[in-house]
Amino acid sequence: MDATPDRIPTPASPPPDVVRCVAMELVVTDLAASRHFYVDVLGLVVTEEDETCVYLRTYEEFVHHNLVLRQGPVAAAAAFSFRVRSPQDVDRAVAFYEELGCRVARRADGFTRGVRDAVRVQDPLGFPYEFFHEVEHVERLAWRYDLHPPGVLARLDHFNQVTPDVPRAVRHLEDLGFRVTEDIQDAAGTTYAAWMRRKPTVHDTAMTGGDGPRLHHVAFATYEKHNVLAICDRLGALRMSDRIERGPGRHGVSNAFYLYLRDPDGHRVEIYTQDYWTGDPDNPVVTWDVHDNQRRDWWGNPVVPSWYTEASLVLDLDGVPQPVVARTDSSEMAVTIGADGFSYTRPGDAPEALPSWKQGEYKLGHQL
Amino acid sequence: MDATPDRIPTPASPPPDVVRCVAMELVVTDLAASRHFYVDVLGLVVTEEDETCVYLRTYEEFVHHNLVLRQGPVAAAAAFSFRVRSPQDVDRAVAFYEELGCRVARRADGFTRGVRDAVRVQDPLGFPYEFFHEVEHVERLAWRYDLHPPGVLARLDHFNQVTPDVPRAVRHLEDLGFRVTEDIQDAAGTTYAAWMRRKPTVHDTAMTGGDGPRLHHVAFATYEKHNVLAICDRLGALRMSDRIERGPGRHGVSNAFYLYLRDPDGHRVEIYTQDYWTGDPDNPVVTWDVHDNQRRDWWGNPVVPSWYTEASLVLDLDGVPQPVVARTDSSEMAVTIGADGFSYTRPGDAPEALPSWKQGEYKLGHQL
Amino acid sequence: MDATPDRIPTPASPPPDVVRCVAMELVVTDLAASRHFYVDVLGLVVTEEDETCVYLRTYEEFVHHNLVLRQGPVAAAAAFSFRVRSPQDVDRAVAFYEELGCRVARRADGFTRGVRDAVRVQDPLGFPYEFFHEVEHVERLAWRYDLHPPGVLARLDHFNQVTPDVPRAVRHLEDLGFRVTEDIQDAAGTTYAAWMRRKPTVHDTAMTGGDGPRLHHVAFATYEKHNVLAICDRLGALRMSDRIERGPGRHGVSNAFYLYLRDPDGHRVEIYTQDYWTGDPDNPVVTWDVHDNQRRDWWGNPVVPSWYTEASLVLDLDGVPQPVVARTDSSEMAVTIGADGFSYTRPGDAPEALPSWKQGEYKLGHQL
Amino acid sequence: MDATPDRIPTPASPPPDVVRCVAMELVVTDLAASRHFYVDVLGLVVTEEDETCVYLRTYEEFVHHNLVLRQGPVAAAAAFSFRVRSPQDVDRAVAFYEELGCRVARRADGFTRGVRDAVRVQDPLGFPYEFFHEVEHVERLAWRYDLHPPGVLARLDHFNQVTPDVPRAVRHLEDLGFRVTEDIQDAAGTTYAAWMRRKPTVHDTAMTGGDGPRLHHVAFATYEKHNVLAICDRLGALRMSDRIERGPGRHGVSNAFYLYLRDPDGHRVEIYTQDYWTGDPDNPVVTWDVHDNQRRDWWGNPVVPSWYTEASLVLDLDGVPQPVVARTDSSEMAVTIGADGFSYTRPGDAPEALPSWKQGEYKLGHQL
Repeated sequence: MDATPDRIPTPASPPPDVVRCVAMELVVTDLAASRHFYVDVLGLVVTEEDETCVYLRTYEEFVHHNLVLRQGPVAAAAAFSFRVRSPQDVDRAVAFYEELGCRVARRADGFTRGVRDAVRVQDPLGFPYEFFHEVEHVERLAWRYDLHPPGVLARLDHFNQVTPDVPRAVRHLEDLGFRVTEDIQDAAGTTYAAWMRRKPTVHDTAMTGGDGPRLHHVAFATYEKHNVLAICDRLGALRMSDRIERGPGRHGVSNAFYLYLRDPDGHRVEIYTQDYWTGDPDNPVVTWDVHDNQRRDWWGNPVVPSWYTEASLVLDLDGVPQPVVARTDSSEMAVTIGADGFSYTRPGDAPEALPSWKQGEYKLGHQL
Repeated sequence: MDATPDRIPTPASPPPDVVRCVAMELVVTDLAASRHFYVDVLGLVVTEEDETCVYLRTYEEFVHHNLVLRQGPVAAAAAFSFRVRSPQDVDRAVAFYEELGCRVARRADGFTRGVRDAVRVQDPLGFPYEFFHEVEHVERLAWRYDLHPPGVLARLDHFNQVTPDVPRAVRHLEDLGFRVTEDIQDAAGTTYAAWMRRKPTVHDTAMTGGDGPRLHHVAFATYEKHNVLAICDRLGALRMSDRIERGPGRHGVSNAFYLYLRDPDGHRVEIYTQDYWTGDPDNPVVTWDVHDNQRRDWWGNPVVPSWYTEASLVLDLDGVPQPVVARTDSSEMAVTIGADGFSYTRPGDAPEALPSWKQGEYKLGHQL
Repeated sequence: MDATPDRIPTPASPPPDVVRCVAMELVVTDLAASRHFYVDVLGLVVTEEDETCVYLRTYEEFVHHNLVLRQGPVAAAAAFSFRVRSPQDVDRAVAFYEELGCRVARRADGFTRGVRDAVRVQDPLGFPYEFFHEVEHVERLAWRYDLHPPGVLARLDHFNQVTPDVPRAVRHLEDLGFRVTEDIQDAAGTTYAAWMRRKPTVHDTAMTGGDGPRLHHVAFATYEKHNVLAICDRLGALRMSDRIERGPGRHGVSNAFYLYLRDPDGHRVEIYTQDYWTGDPDNPVVTWDVHDNQRRDWWGNPVVPSWYTEASLVLDLDGVPQPVVARTDSSEMAVTIGADGFSYTRPGDAPEALPSWKQGEYKLGHQL
Repeated sequence: MDATPDRIPTPASPPPDVVRCVAMELVVTDLAASRHFYVDVLGLVVTEEDETCVYLRTYEEFVHHNLVLRQGPVAAAAAFSFRVRSPQDVDRAVAFYEELGCRVARRADGFTRGVRDAVRVQDPLGFPYEFFHEVEHVERLAWRYDLHPPGVLARLDHFNQVTPDVPRAVRHLEDLGFRVTEDIQDAAGTTYAAWMRRKPTVHDTAMTGGDGPRLHHVAFATYEKHNVLAICDRLGALRMSDRIERGPGRHGVSNAFYLYLRDPDGHRVEIYTQDYWTGDPDNPVVTWDVHDNQRRDWWGNPVVPSWYTEASLVLDLDGVPQPVVARTDSSEMAVTIGADGFSYTRPGDAPEALPSWKQGEYKLGHQL
């Protein structure tokens, strides 16, 4: 596969030392509606705001923000932000991406409040990545239980990116210093998705195969499973349960407990808790068979089609949505729940082994 | 409706004083497989067993058993057992049902181990009801945390019966001393289901509209939501996740947290926790609109079709399956997820208000 | 013991049919401070209020209130209120207590808002009991998860009364229709405490041996253990952790998870979850040895002395505090943690068997 | 303080790159009793065992073991093991400690099963530290929910060491590449304890001021608070509740939920869950006032004296217990719960502000 003409070269410049994913900037088309969703419903904390931007953080965060909502004409993801270890790592980011021929913009006073000396790039996969070290510190609200809602969001956990060619994306992220912790493949060697990390959790970002570049979701971590369920219960009470797209459930991949929501612009948000330590250099990579119906939900509950097909546009450095390139490899939805797809509960099971109550679910795909 | 010719008469004999639903007897076609499911997977406690029967109980129970698995040729429910307050209430049960012209069988030494002086009847709705007071006491394992599995089942909570004419069934159960706590109706006055109680929880049994008489499910209560999730996780680890039919989720009706499983014969088992006190004489009845998509799942997750259509046969006093009579009223599935059905998240919403990720789900019905 | 001259006679009048403990009226000396504690800190719901009274309820309650805070000169309990099954049961309460020669006051318009036709009595043990049936219904907030705090209080669960002679009190409560579910005794036959119920939980009230009549505590039920812990965390965040008197922990008696708080006047409030079904007529009574150090805390954590010695005064029908009569039987504190007391973890253990880390704790008593 | 004559020099050799604390070797005097405690009661997984050693691991671990129980004549800690990033880091450890003049022993085939090329040193503080990279991989049981007990232990989280001079120890650990995340001080500048990390949690080890070198405890992480409580409940059911020394509770320092147990030899084990991310280079250090009674328990529950005074001996490389040197700085117990100590709930509170129910507790110290 290294011979594919479009393999992204490995720069001679060392990559920046990425500490963790730290923030996402989302363009939203109705700032008041989005603020209501993230603040009044999900309970994120407003660090500061003005007429066009709301800066939000989680309850364990001491950095200025984890999420920026910015009013704009087209819903999209404007920046996937990573914190780097030192000021010099911002220089390294510049050199790394310039060597790759990417557009690079650096601002000494940052692109958002609370951040200084940041660089934004249009990466070779088409995503707007941002790197910075200098940040404004704010109160860490971890001990402020008087403020915690029942579904308290503690940390930004990860991003998830849709990209047509997952192995190509993985190799590039490895050049940037990320490591694969888990992936989904089939017997023919097609890779459907890969989870990649800098911090020692399952991921800082994942590469999901599909038409891209697009943002699949941004994920916030909470403490316990009941916190996730509290968000569902709250949405029900607010008659907003149709914000729930998928879950709650237990992932196979990552072993985490999850819930997927859709915000007022359709941006997907995951609530996530309890994956595992991956920080050892020889951390075992877990590879899942795409036909294992416990890979994406350990309980075998099917993935809804929209989860496979819908995602958010991403912007270039001019704020223009990036064109979306179609995936040419097999799609995970087609091979699992489509007319010709199948999934098994036990390796070796025939498709007919699914009980009556599961057959309807796993044949959803061909009816779309 | 009182004028319907088939209204079940109200006996002049007073009904027995039913304390609670206490046990279910299931005929299973492979006793070893069923024992594995209920004991090794779900963790119910074996009180005693022989070659044809296994007597199981929950961890808070002090009565001999809550579930009898009996080997037989056809999977079916053989007895819905209720405990009555005094020995005299068994006499009352005999008189009550004899006045109704039902078949009645009484055995001084009981129909099962651990029980004496029991009466079994073929009730006017076609269900095999059993009433007894005298029971053998066994150790209540509530404090035996050394034995509790992560998904500990604490109590038998309720039965759920499928019957074609819900209002007719409700009136009869009211004659037996039960009271409605919640129901599902539509604007035209059709009743789709009703929950009825003796003990002060939401129900000892529910009447679900459909082809009957059949057993919809038997439910066991656990303590906390994480206990329910532990059962899902365990089924995943055992590669038995296809035993999960629906859930986990939060019910609208009852406000309880739930999970539906199917046993090796397809008998449906619910795991249930945290409904509410209903013991006041003027407890407010909650009526749900059949089109409210939060009525059966507070989070708006759709009910799988099998949950509406599949159920277990019930036996008559000779052990012969009762013939199933078709429901003639509208079916809940048809009016909510069928071709002409619809559900809303907010009262007043048009069917088109469902977001893309929900439309696929709620259009399942017509594709069956 | 039936020969004791002060045995309370059993009236010929039938007792009222008590459904459940339903409300407590507390006199508080600083209404604003108490309102802050119960509403802003514990999250109880204000049904209505005026300058001298605040009417509060839990999230599952449909009756007007579970707790009345009334401004007054001396902190005390003014009424232990029970709901009775029918209007006629109020008549029965009047006859029952009048036959006992008790002071009885009945008001057609109730003693508090939200209640009509109530009777208050000064019972033979010196407690101000209230009985009513007619109540104003209010919204049951069980489904209003948008309002639930992390430590949501769902129901009033029980009262706990301090009285010098527990067996005498038990016999009287049995006359009133209550049944013992658990008690604490010693080998010599002294009874230290007894738990008594009408509703099918471990208790509607308990009799704790000590100088009385006094109110030991009023208890509210929540759903899960993490809800109890959330209250602790919140008190810590508010720098009000010194409101925590004892716990959290698991009771031996009742098997419930508990926490004891003290309100601004020192009234004791328990947060409680998950006891067990006691509604069968032959529910097994559990008797604990007073020397079993797991009886009051299943984990063997010692009871703080104040929990044994401090309690709230109760008022007579004129609003005057009842004189407190000393207990003459052995005190539970003295026989367990006092200079001559001892407790064991395993029956048969010598006092010396306590490990070093427990010895300091269980010798607290003699140092007071 | 840098002028103190006994400051440990900073080696010119770079320290090894420590990934995380990974294992503890405990000498136990009754291997069967210890195996019962850790395996049958706490549920750790046996990787392998022979007549003198049991190798145990947690459910998320893929390295051979996290705990070694070795039969021996005197209960003690034999090795605090850290995993290093590369084989070369073992060389670095050798050079680092040899430059410090410490005893150093390296074994190509490891000191225990499952490990190769390990070095053990007698560090300048007197502790037996071990460093290795090469390990045998075993099955990660994170997804094996069929094996998880209710109180599942997921990871080794940290060690805690008792040492007389905390600042001296901190400086040395900083030389080894650790960073302080939290500490406890007083206004006069005395440091009572410090938490230090390599992995991005609150600690891999902590330095607790006291007579040392001794092992204060080893801590295992679980997922949720109810898992911790399940261990308490289980100990109660087994009539082993006297193994509980302190807790459960919420720490102020670390914000984690905790429980302290004592094993059959008195070795202290903590069960721990949910501290926070500390991996940013500028992670804010949290300093607690020693008089803040929420620092060690956020709910203000007092620390039992044994927790301050008792700890395990540590062995030198010959297997001989290290002599214990007395702390000369003030002891945390003396200044907080002793005759002259005091603790406050709110900064500025006078000692008299403690309510009656807390006074007994916080005056424990002088009565020892």
